[in-house]
Amino acid sequence: MNDLNIQPIGVIETPFENPEGMPIQPEGALGVEGRLIIDPVFEEGLNDIDGFSHLILLYYFHRSSGYDLMVTPFMDNTQRGVFSTRAPRRPSQIGFSVVRLLKREGPILFIRGIDVLCGTPLLDIKPYVPKFDAKDAEAVGWLETHQHKVARITSDSRFSNQSQKTDNQ
Amino acid sequence: MNDLNIQPIGVIETPFENPEGMPIQPEGALGVEGRLIIDPVFEEGLNDIDGFSHLILLYYFHRSSGYDLMVTPFMDNTQRGVFSTRAPRRPSQIGFSVVRLLKREGPILFIRGIDVLCGTPLLDIKPYVPKFDAKDAEAVGWLETHQHKVARITSDSRFSNQSQKTDNQ
Repeated sequence: MNDLNIQPIGVIETPFENPEGMPIQPEGALGVEGRLIIDPVFEEGLNDIDGFSHLILLYYFHRSSGYDLMVTPFMDNTQRGVFSTRAPRRPSQIGFSVVRLLKREGPILFIRGIDVLCGTPLLDIKPYVPKFDAKDAEAVGWLETHQHKVARITSDSRFSNQSQKTDNQ
Repeated sequence: MNDLNIQPIGVIETPFENPEGMPIQPEGALGVEGRLIIDPVFEEGLNDIDGFSHLILLYYFHRSSGYDLMVTPFMDNTQRGVFSTRAPRRPSQIGFSVVRLLKREGPILFIRGIDVLCGTPLLDIKPYVPKFDAKDAEAVGWLETHQHKVARITSDSRFSNQSQKTDNQ
């Protein structure tokens, strides 16, 4: 299959200049505020967005390169298939987070609960709608016994110089 | 900002050959089954995935081209900013759904609750984890009075020849 060309719509500003010490999920970054700086050519597309309390962000792990199909997540010490993790070094290099929208000022969105490196290219914003997006998932695989660690784990050098987000559960 | 190159990891098979009559959200496609056909070179990355009941899918609206910053969603008759909708004709052309995983057979994942056109390129699979991904969103903007229509609305020719998924709320 051919590669697809995708154009960023803006950039994510956060307090995190380096992966070390960064939360590994928005759950561990609940109080962390950041900004989405949208390219002015896309500003009109932000109409109506301030009616939503939460947004889905898709972004690009720009400091990752390459990928492994088996990875050892921060929250585990066993190798797992990359598609069963949120590891940044993945084939698509695309990351996903749901964040709280605080306010909009023109082409700038102020958000809370963000866990990516400053300068991360933003690919898309979608409204978060629980009726569509929240599921009663009765099984969370290998994360079952690990997911509660996420709020107190921060990243280390495991993916250093390769990952912009150390979010890999 | 430069365009980014993203390589699909597989393709989504569904019963939907054309947009007309297709559900506009997984909520309207709860019983619809499909398959993710993963490129064998990525198969190893599927390890551990069958422990999860729900998966996040990112895919590419390959039959969309171009975008509008203001769109009239199916569930509304007012123009809205594209980033406050799920319209397929959007700058990134990336779509997002949470689906149920039924079973895995080698490089093939059987899923339920899928609302995209057959042949849609799959960009990424991530485990759906309610602790990370489900939010108590107290505001869903213009969708507040419209979201309950989603299960009975199907698509029409509004985005015909342009959209592979008519999911735009």
